[in-house]
Amino acid sequence: MAEILRLRKPYLLFVGDADNPLDAKTSSGIAHWRPDDCLAQLRLRPDGADLGLPDMGIASAAKAGAKTFVIGIAPVGGGLPDDWIAICVEALEAGMDIAAGLHTRISEIPQVAEAAARTGRTVHDLREPPANLPCGTGKRRSGRRILTVGTDCAVGKMYSALALHRELVARGLDADFRATGQTGIFIEGSGIAIDAVVSDFLAGAVEVLSPSSDPDHWDVIEGQGSLYHPAYAGVSLGLLHGAQADFLVLCHELGRTLIDGDYPEYPIVDLREVADLNLAHARRTNPKAKLLGLSVNSSRLDPEAAAAEMARIEERLGVPVVDPVRDGSARLADRLDK
Amino acid sequence: MAEILRLRKPYLLFVGDADNPLDAKTSSGIAHWRPDDCLAQLRLRPDGADLGLPDMGIASAAKAGAKTFVIGIAPVGGGLPDDWIAICVEALEAGMDIAAGLHTRISEIPQVAEAAARTGRTVHDLREPPANLPCGTGKRRSGRRILTVGTDCAVGKMYSALALHRELVARGLDADFRATGQTGIFIEGSGIAIDAVVSDFLAGAVEVLSPSSDPDHWDVIEGQGSLYHPAYAGVSLGLLHGAQADFLVLCHELGRTLIDGDYPEYPIVDLREVADLNLAHARRTNPKAKLLGLSVNSSRLDPEAAAAEMARIEERLGVPVVDPVRDGSARLADRLDK
Repeated sequence: MAEILRLRKPYLLFVGDADNPLDAKTSSGIAHWRPDDCLAQLRLRPDGADLGLPDMGIASAAKAGAKTFVIGIAPVGGGLPDDWIAICVEALEAGMDIAAGLHTRISEIPQVAEAAARTGRTVHDLREPPANLPCGTGKRRSGRRILTVGTDCAVGKMYSALALHRELVARGLDADFRATGQTGIFIEGSGIAIDAVVSDFLAGAVEVLSPSSDPDHWDVIEGQGSLYHPAYAGVSLGLLHGAQADFLVLCHELGRTLIDGDYPEYPIVDLREVADLNLAHARRTNPKAKLLGLSVNSSRLDPEAAAAEMARIEERLGVPVVDPVRDGSARLADRLDK
Repeated sequence: MAEILRLRKPYLLFVGDADNPLDAKTSSGIAHWRPDDCLAQLRLRPDGADLGLPDMGIASAAKAGAKTFVIGIAPVGGGLPDDWIAICVEALEAGMDIAAGLHTRISEIPQVAEAAARTGRTVHDLREPPANLPCGTGKRRSGRRILTVGTDCAVGKMYSALALHRELVARGLDADFRATGQTGIFIEGSGIAIDAVVSDFLAGAVEVLSPSSDPDHWDVIEGQGSLYHPAYAGVSLGLLHGAQADFLVLCHELGRTLIDGDYPEYPIVDLREVADLNLAHARRTNPKAKLLGLSVNSSRLDPEAAAAEMARIEERLGVPVVDPVRDGSARLADRLDK
């Protein structure tokens, strides 16, 4: 049976040489969403990006109880600098695990591998899916599930899922956030990097990630890509089938007109059409799937223009449209009883 | 740049202990579709399954010019028997490559690995996709492409693509068959096992498999799975986006009512609906994509009932419906000028 990665908490967050929080956005995200899981930060430069956590070195963080050294930032250039390697070895020797999602596999650096073997600690590569994933079965499972889907990559599917999960927990509901991308896995401390899964096992991986649960339990599953993305749509469809979602939340960036990146031939598709196609696929494995609402990033627009645009979409699609950053996700959660 | 596997021909086909052609169906398929590439067969039992090829041992086949020893059959039970390993070593020593697609990786068996290193020959694992596959770009490319899609797995997508490719070649058209599964790769001697590709690179792999070509060149691409298959739909969507097909051929088994295998909750979907959804996705990367026709397996029905059912479908969908085994694919090829 496939075993899903689980990171031990709390974390010591590595900030490296980053001098602004944007360069350290994975670490910033962890500190934002799971402040209680973040014991301290380790900065290589005293004036580096500040996540608002206490500064600690390896030894003092370990003594204070840090269980995993989190490398959520890539080194400038390619390979891992020597001082980073030395810090990794020190973290392992101090009794911490390491979690990283770099292109260079830290676990394959000889000094790090040797230290991990010697100390019995684990080096987690967040891009590595679990072994022995099964193919999807499509068998209906108990529990309730919400999946975020999108008009494109990078429109807020992770943020929207985390915000809605937080809202459910605040309402006293039993809910889990199910991470499918690297940053989400760091935040939750668990999950599967779904785009790294071999295609045959896509839907099966989602079934494993979000298994049968109590009838009143909610899984809020982080979506990836878009059915309309010329590179990544297969991943999105595997998620739709594997999730058996009761509700979809459609994520979108207001004002975006083209698929992000080098895709000038690919316009963002009409929201109604995107919702309908996602629902059609979702209903293959859960005939009751419904659109819960839209969760948009309205930051390109001033608040008034955003409100007007969101009201227009709401009128047209007949479901709530929220910007979770500006408005929270309460209006989506309100509809879950229905 | 990703390099696609290419097998050297002609082949010596290994039949192992199989005593009926169904057990040796991969080898039978190779001999059926590419007789000129099959120099001989090697049977462990003189009364074993007969592919209609000359019987030869390793030494005589090598002397006669065989370039690749093809293991298209799995041993009964789990691991590779000792006599198979000895034959593999002998094939390498005789100057042949080996091509296999077993669950056991032949290239990882120590005696085989040692012999390959010593002789400088290659052991191909057909389930292994090329390294360094790119993500999809969605950029429109030249040349013309046909993709087979299906209502389910195992409805004849490979057979239909091979039959249509043969018809195009017979008409003097410049055409390639692009294999995406193991048997297809054996037959063509080239291809990518698309379901073994990491999800992120699905569409990119298809772009690599079927690159830009002369405007009059046809690629006939073997489809996989089905948009409606609860386990494998992601693979099918990656193929649809990556292929940029000008024409889809919808494959179906007449009389099948449920998704094959352990999927009792999943009916085969109405053909019109299947065609429309496949076209909708195909048009994302090629707005001119059209349904060329249907290619069905009518073997469950007697010829009269089959003809009646095919006429009904043809009437309803407005495109030709052929059974390539019974009727050939000429009526599909006829429509390519249009």
